[in-house]
Amino acid sequence: MTTFKNPNPKFEHLLPKSAGWKQTITSWLQEDIPAFDYGGYVVGDNLQSATLYCKSDGVLAGVPFAKEVYEQCGLKVEWLIEEGTYLKPSETESGRIKVALVSGPVKDILQAERLSLNIISRCSGIATQSHRTIELARKSGYKGIIAGTRKTTPGLRLLEKYSMLVGGIDPHRNDLSSMIMLKDNHIWATGSITKAVESAKRVAGFSTKIEVEVQNEDEANEAIEVGADIVMLDNFTGDELQAVAKRLKSKWDGKKIFLLECSGGLTLQNIGEFLCKDIDIYSTSSVHQGCGIIDFSLKINRKD
Amino acid sequence: MTTFKNPNPKFEHLLPKSAGWKQTITSWLQEDIPAFDYGGYVVGDNLQSATLYCKSDGVLAGVPFAKEVYEQCGLKVEWLIEEGTYLKPSETESGRIKVALVSGPVKDILQAERLSLNIISRCSGIATQSHRTIELARKSGYKGIIAGTRKTTPGLRLLEKYSMLVGGIDPHRNDLSSMIMLKDNHIWATGSITKAVESAKRVAGFSTKIEVEVQNEDEANEAIEVGADIVMLDNFTGDELQAVAKRLKSKWDGKKIFLLECSGGLTLQNIGEFLCKDIDIYSTSSVHQGCGIIDFSLKINRKD
Amino acid sequence: MTTFKNPNPKFEHLLPKSAGWKQTITSWLQEDIPAFDYGGYVVGDNLQSATLYCKSDGVLAGVPFAKEVYEQCGLKVEWLIEEGTYLKPSETESGRIKVALVSGPVKDILQAERLSLNIISRCSGIATQSHRTIELARKSGYKGIIAGTRKTTPGLRLLEKYSMLVGGIDPHRNDLSSMIMLKDNHIWATGSITKAVESAKRVAGFSTKIEVEVQNEDEANEAIEVGADIVMLDNFTGDELQAVAKRLKSKWDGKKIFLLECSGGLTLQNIGEFLCKDIDIYSTSSVHQGCGIIDFSLKINRKD
Amino acid sequence: MTTFKNPNPKFEHLLPKSAGWKQTITSWLQEDIPAFDYGGYVVGDNLQSATLYCKSDGVLAGVPFAKEVYEQCGLKVEWLIEEGTYLKPSETESGRIKVALVSGPVKDILQAERLSLNIISRCSGIATQSHRTIELARKSGYKGIIAGTRKTTPGLRLLEKYSMLVGGIDPHRNDLSSMIMLKDNHIWATGSITKAVESAKRVAGFSTKIEVEVQNEDEANEAIEVGADIVMLDNFTGDELQAVAKRLKSKWDGKKIFLLECSGGLTLQNIGEFLCKDIDIYSTSSVHQGCGIIDFSLKINRKD
Amino acid sequence: MTTFKNPNPKFEHLLPKSAGWKQTITSWLQEDIPAFDYGGYVVGDNLQSATLYCKSDGVLAGVPFAKEVYEQCGLKVEWLIEEGTYLKPSETESGRIKVALVSGPVKDILQAERLSLNIISRCSGIATQSHRTIELARKSGYKGIIAGTRKTTPGLRLLEKYSMLVGGIDPHRNDLSSMIMLKDNHIWATGSITKAVESAKRVAGFSTKIEVEVQNEDEANEAIEVGADIVMLDNFTGDELQAVAKRLKSKWDGKKIFLLECSGGLTLQNIGEFLCKDIDIYSTSSVHQGCGIIDFSLKINRKD
Amino acid sequence: MTTFKNPNPKFEHLLPKSAGWKQTITSWLQEDIPAFDYGGYVVGDNLQSATLYCKSDGVLAGVPFAKEVYEQCGLKVEWLIEEGTYLKPSETESGRIKVALVSGPVKDILQAERLSLNIISRCSGIATQSHRTIELARKSGYKGIIAGTRKTTPGLRLLEKYSMLVGGIDPHRNDLSSMIMLKDNHIWATGSITKAVESAKRVAGFSTKIEVEVQNEDEANEAIEVGADIVMLDNFTGDELQAVAKRLKSKWDGKKIFLLECSGGLTLQNIGEFLCKDIDIYSTSSVHQGCGIIDFSLKINRKD
Repeated sequence: MTTFKNPNPKFEHLLPKSAGWKQTITSWLQEDIPAFDYGGYVVGDNLQSATLYCKSDGVLAGVPFAKEVYEQCGLKVEWLIEEGTYLKPSETESGRIKVALVSGPVKDILQAERLSLNIISRCSGIATQSHRTIELARKSGYKGIIAGTRKTTPGLRLLEKYSMLVGGIDPHRNDLSSMIMLKDNHIWATGSITKAVESAKRVAGFSTKIEVEVQNEDEANEAIEVGADIVMLDNFTGDELQAVAKRLKSKWDGKKIFLLECSGGLTLQNIGEFLCKDIDIYSTSSVHQGCGIIDFSLKINRKD
Repeated sequence: MTTFKNPNPKFEHLLPKSAGWKQTITSWLQEDIPAFDYGGYVVGDNLQSATLYCKSDGVLAGVPFAKEVYEQCGLKVEWLIEEGTYLKPSETESGRIKVALVSGPVKDILQAERLSLNIISRCSGIATQSHRTIELARKSGYKGIIAGTRKTTPGLRLLEKYSMLVGGIDPHRNDLSSMIMLKDNHIWATGSITKAVESAKRVAGFSTKIEVEVQNEDEANEAIEVGADIVMLDNFTGDELQAVAKRLKSKWDGKKIFLLECSGGLTLQNIGEFLCKDIDIYSTSSVHQGCGIIDFSLKINRKD
Repeated sequence: MTTFKNPNPKFEHLLPKSAGWKQTITSWLQEDIPAFDYGGYVVGDNLQSATLYCKSDGVLAGVPFAKEVYEQCGLKVEWLIEEGTYLKPSETESGRIKVALVSGPVKDILQAERLSLNIISRCSGIATQSHRTIELARKSGYKGIIAGTRKTTPGLRLLEKYSMLVGGIDPHRNDLSSMIMLKDNHIWATGSITKAVESAKRVAGFSTKIEVEVQNEDEANEAIEVGADIVMLDNFTGDELQAVAKRLKSKWDGKKIFLLECSGGLTLQNIGEFLCKDIDIYSTSSVHQGCGIIDFSLKINRKD
Repeated sequence: MTTFKNPNPKFEHLLPKSAGWKQTITSWLQEDIPAFDYGGYVVGDNLQSATLYCKSDGVLAGVPFAKEVYEQCGLKVEWLIEEGTYLKPSETESGRIKVALVSGPVKDILQAERLSLNIISRCSGIATQSHRTIELARKSGYKGIIAGTRKTTPGLRLLEKYSMLVGGIDPHRNDLSSMIMLKDNHIWATGSITKAVESAKRVAGFSTKIEVEVQNEDEANEAIEVGADIVMLDNFTGDELQAVAKRLKSKWDGKKIFLLECSGGLTLQNIGEFLCKDIDIYSTSSVHQGCGIIDFSLKINRKD
Repeated sequence: MTTFKNPNPKFEHLLPKSAGWKQTITSWLQEDIPAFDYGGYVVGDNLQSATLYCKSDGVLAGVPFAKEVYEQCGLKVEWLIEEGTYLKPSETESGRIKVALVSGPVKDILQAERLSLNIISRCSGIATQSHRTIELARKSGYKGIIAGTRKTTPGLRLLEKYSMLVGGIDPHRNDLSSMIMLKDNHIWATGSITKAVESAKRVAGFSTKIEVEVQNEDEANEAIEVGADIVMLDNFTGDELQAVAKRLKSKWDGKKIFLLECSGGLTLQNIGEFLCKDIDIYSTSSVHQGCGIIDFSLKINRKD
Repeated sequence: MTTFKNPNPKFEHLLPKSAGWKQTITSWLQEDIPAFDYGGYVVGDNLQSATLYCKSDGVLAGVPFAKEVYEQCGLKVEWLIEEGTYLKPSETESGRIKVALVSGPVKDILQAERLSLNIISRCSGIATQSHRTIELARKSGYKGIIAGTRKTTPGLRLLEKYSMLVGGIDPHRNDLSSMIMLKDNHIWATGSITKAVESAKRVAGFSTKIEVEVQNEDEANEAIEVGADIVMLDNFTGDELQAVAKRLKSKWDGKKIFLLECSGGLTLQNIGEFLCKDIDIYSTSSVHQGCGIIDFSLKINRKD
């Protein structure tokens, strides 16, 4: 079978054509201009172009969301840099790198300015932190998965999970309707890990994975036995964690397939000694929560 | 650890407290009364009660959705029958079974009437068809999964997947953002099953399952090798299907864990000879698409 | 007065340009892709075309709704068959008939696929059942109206009423804010048919018709006297119904204009002996509720 | 059959319990407080009561809409005057009449103040103008219908049609999906009145009335012949109008039932000589468009 | 610095590109066609053009809102008259002036007709009343500000404030989240003007103005002292008002900058003697509430 | 005049009762549970209570938003700590401080958990950074205003401006429809500061402040002359800035009232030497953009 080939998949193809995320962007534009645009009256609709500059080092992310802002404001935009590129304006003479050219009525450029910058600086901040984290992990020899969490900014989950992907981080489950996680409360509520998993399977169906949070090695074995797809080792100290992970992997080898996950505690500073090869997944909100932003600006190219 | 015990989980606990499905019900009420309620003016707001009757045999389903209709219309409702019960009004003298008591202003009862009946008759229709299908499958000795499809009525996916669950059927993946299915088009677009799966894994993360549709045994082996969680055998004839399924299961025993799925063709009539034990999942839209409804009515208890 | 002539009115002209039904379709697309479109990432945005095939016999309906799905997904569509045509794929060699050509980015075609099929198969199912019913009625010599009911699928009333029209069935009143129906509860609440009709007229105005449900001939006469536009004969047995209808028509001839309606009981099987010429309207939910679907598929035309 | 009796139907029972009109009121509250309520911060949530006063003569209308404003702001309200009452504050010593008592946190009373007054003053303005018009018509001996039009304020159709009803005026058709009006453009587009009516009947069904606008007596006869429910006589001068109306009524007596309508030109000043008994309906936007308002105020009862 | 010059700012540039006001217009179109457009079916989609005529004297306003109606209905529109122009159809022979040309499918022209007329006639009514008021004020020698109020029609605040601007009137604060007004209730709730202003300043920040309503001269001095930007003189009689205003202006000259406002009582009749030069702002709802409309019509240019 | 006294104004009184921010919270809950709540099915609706703990030092903020989350999930909440309090869990033995008690069905507590924590940790992060900044400014002797910017997270402007207020920072203008800022582009578009301000005044009305960004002292004088309420000194170096500010203040003393603003560059580190007393306002996004979060957790109080 010959094929048309899709040699270079783009993250932006993850976003559906007709969808809620576009309406969200409309509501964000309205948040910034709830009534009159006084500035628009002053500047008018003369056609102009503007340049989007990156001004601090990091991974460019959030392109389809910024693109949608420009489109909803009736502007044309040409991107000069591909999403996912690591930009180093600090190494240029001007201290800034041209990322895109935007053109249209000057009032509409100014309407789009703040929102597009707010989006792209936040997305790139997350992609950059994600990228740095996975880079350090790989340098330290770790071959497993680094994943984010559900501790995303309310209303921005899609943008932040997307930015993690651009930065090379696994976005972890999207929401409570995705992969099931049975934490201590769920287990406590049913009486045992086995009962909790059986209850969950009754409604999840075969298409949904189940993860179980365990407090000790016995619980881990129970979870694996009853068919957990992923086992989260909670509250284990460093050395114990490594030992337990090793024993679990060896005990169930060839009998059950499961992944081991650890959560929290990871930072860019401690990552070298933190990661252990028998843990398949380290999840951390440090790649997206409270991480900084990348600086961008939009400047009108004055045709004086 | 002692526990508070949740001995009898209810399907209605699957539905979030504050959510879109409640707004959908509001929009359905508005569909039926876009402007004035002339009938409401005629009958007024005298307090009355009404009885919800089941009038044809089947599984009661859709309770939380009907409950929400009554609640949004300001009515109180007391349910006499638990969701999931198989009702046989045909075996009663009156030909009907009391399902719930609804009370409040008479105009509001009449506003809720048609929508609540439309919902509960459709949900129960699906639950009943699902129940009958799984019953027959079990009688024929099949121990695997019978699942629905994504061919649900637009706007009613949650209700219909819910009704399948009540009827004992696996709802299958909820949407395109849930479990990934790589069909012939996805494979054709990337050049091979291996490339398609690798591409999907780059964005899906560890928490999302991947299913691959295959046309022959070689493709099935390739899909299993590259880590497909589920393999859909497409276009296999009866005997060949059984033989291939058996060979795949035996070949990969102890090496890879995967499920085999077949889709379509299943009916209440042919189910006896259709099912084969090496196929883990049979998916069919016959349990929810174009299946009949169960008859319900709401009668005011006239306090003459 | 010369005119531009509108010789061939189309059902799709019933749908307003800027309207709620388009937003409903947006919400349905979102139902199917709430977050990421993993498949879209895998296949990319290579330009392709696809063919919409009809695979079981029936009346094509739902065209403007499917068209809107394609449009919202950024696709072009060319229709080869006019809405309302009775298609007979069973009489073709391939067992399928080309209905439309759809073209655009392959990821967008796949996004539109399931929803467009779900819509067109349901609409065509209703149009087909409607067509078969009216055909049989005409064959049996009945010249009156066959109408649907308000027992439509929640959220799909417009689509289903539209499909009835395409199939040749009268859609009956659209909702509680349209034609007023005074049923037993309304009459009971006011004390008499006369009082109920007078109360309704106070708010309905001259532009809204009033129908009254009656239990016997005396009530029918009272309803006609007080000016009911339509009288629904409820709970009459076959022969009695015919006799009463005849007597009412003859008694009020030249004095009052009214229509007689009967509801329920009608099936494709009994239609021959069921219909009586003095009943102007038979309403039945059998043409839209729980009736089957017509099978359609969308296949990419691989330019290998 | 005994009955519970609904001796005193209320206009507010026309409004559905769960509906769009409540969401509209939410959006109106948001229009007035899009971000912070600075005044609310200053006054706090001390419990207070306030009195709604009527300050100019007219018919009280809009009660359920104002009630909903208070409810959404978390306030209790007790109405002292029934909707539809003609109030004469000009004849009181204080120049104002107590209409309702509102109580709750002072910040919430102030939030509800402006919107509730804006609503009730507009609704009462329309009800008053409607009342005065129908009173004068009755005094002049006219027994037919005075109706409003579709020239309502965008977004307020329900409120304005409701206010006409409270004032005693027929609200006329609600929208383009209600009673069909075939105007000159529709007739021109099909070639004849007969063709236009036949075309309309194909989609309207038996439940929807059809009105035809005619330019002369021949057209009127054609419209009546083909089954128009209402005939609008357009562009007839005073005497001619009366003569034509008479001839039409006499010609079709006992053969066809139809109503004759005239539109426009009616004012409170000319109403005496304007109305003619053979015209069944006079429609006019003067009762709701550009008519004045009734003055209301909301005063906090200071518990000093 | 050279510049591109925006020599002729247009009011329509005040309206943001992607915004709530466009969604409001969509909801208004839906209000007029909630389900089927029967008329659209009758006339079809033949391409036609139509002319928008102004038929009574006044200021043209509401252009961008009408434009959006046409655009959402898929029509092209060419404006022949600029917004803000004072039109005098009464001085033409035909009694009407061509304002715009609209073209597209005839069914879509008819869908847009009523809403576009409803909008433009109301907006022009307000702009005209505003224009007449400010003209008379200027003729009487008054150089200060005439402003509107918050007593706008619910849901139409943006349109009405916009129309005031077109007519030359200051729109006053937009809502409770704009400029803070501390009325008697706010002051009573805190104990003094000083405390109320201090409380307000704690949350308003430097970017929001504060206005204080005062009952006597002492309160006015207190308000000015504590930094009120505007002082509203409430309940002062004519001569007293003038005297107090003069004293306040002279007392604080060079020490504090503030504006004096009076509200209510102003009419086109009394405006000559009403205005006094020491009052900087007169606010009145007479320019927008209950003022009349300007008559417009949309006529299809029949290409017979 | 006696008064009821509002001695202790609360920030949460800034939030309107019926409003968009509550709908935003609904949409955030839906973001986290788009379809089924599998965990809810497992744990059931047994009544439980939970404790909200603060686990890192900072200012508690976001209380009304978290309160709304709990309310929408049907939970009761009792707050033990007042919003705005600086909490020091680091100084407690347990390392955590009880902030609130939440009670209700266990499934609903778990539904509310993540969103309420996401909100309160972000709001408190901003309030804390704001508080630390203003504290340091006051310590350094600065008595002016520290303000935020419009660089807030899309969709969270209200929450972030609110959090700045709780932390003691001026929120600056809310959006483009609030105070007008004329930046270089606006001035360039009109030709001069004078023309830009005059143009803005034509639409802003007396109730809206105008700020002008200037590049040098001449421009500053022009802006003050033409009536700018605030002058933003852009691109001045440290010493020059101070000198210019002093000269401007002295030159216009007693003639014009205006504020001077500087933007950017401020950090917790440099704040001591950065602030100069002749600058009235320092605005900075450092108090809300990319600043960290405060750690909170919600623990079920197991009644074992």
